[in-house]
Amino acid sequence: MLGRLNHVAIAVPDLSIATASYRDQLGARVSQPQPLPEHGVTVVFVELPNSKVELLEPLGENSPIAAFLAKSPDGGMHHICYEVEDILAARDQLVATGARVLGSGEPKIGAHGKPVLFLHPKDFFGTLIELEQV
Amino acid sequence: MLGRLNHVAIAVPDLSIATASYRDQLGARVSQPQPLPEHGVTVVFVELPNSKVELLEPLGENSPIAAFLAKSPDGGMHHICYEVEDILAARDQLVATGARVLGSGEPKIGAHGKPVLFLHPKDFFGTLIELEQV
Repeated sequence: MLGRLNHVAIAVPDLSIATASYRDQLGARVSQPQPLPEHGVTVVFVELPNSKVELLEPLGENSPIAAFLAKSPDGGMHHICYEVEDILAARDQLVATGARVLGSGEPKIGAHGKPVLFLHPKDFFGTLIELEQV
Repeated sequence: MLGRLNHVAIAVPDLSIATASYRDQLGARVSQPQPLPEHGVTVVFVELPNSKVELLEPLGENSPIAAFLAKSPDGGMHHICYEVEDILAARDQLVATGARVLGSGEPKIGAHGKPVLFLHPKDFFGTLIELEQV
């Protein structure tokens, strides 16, 4: 089922500082900040040769990363995203094994314009897993 | 400086359960468990098409992931490893910008037999970064 490691998302309290660090200290290629109001984050993409890191800063009220940053004010790794070919088949297969899908259980359109789901971190040893259909 | 995303390491309290989950629930290719006493962990490699996830379980006394699991008993993402071409040049460049290298500051031979360093998570928004020379 699992395909490529699409990205690792890192929640940060200050996106401009984190972006400057990845660009100037770590020497990585970074995108312009992209506000995604429907996802409650502003994101900067760190482009690596084989995958991506996404730096996330809360945007607006009820940001999905606000609680994470309240608990970890310095920031930290928030989730890992794996690609799947068929997200509904993946969901049904996972649910049949007892795994819990967050929210309504229906895929939403994610930050890359593709269907995504999140799996309950309690079912995967404390790791929030995003599945993205590609 | 930053090259490929070499791996994401996930600390887990029970390696056999986590391995079975990645293999049977998530349908990924997993290695046999490999005890690495000199690193204080037993590791299972989850092979993805473009990168790796490493599932880590504490091994022996003074495991470097014991404190992490004491704080997060369910487990969680422990570190992210980026490849660099020249680890000494990378270190010197980072230290010149004020970043802190953990331990003695000298590279050690990591789990893949290559020189590695860890950067202080406080300097990188709560994320423990491993650099590996490839």
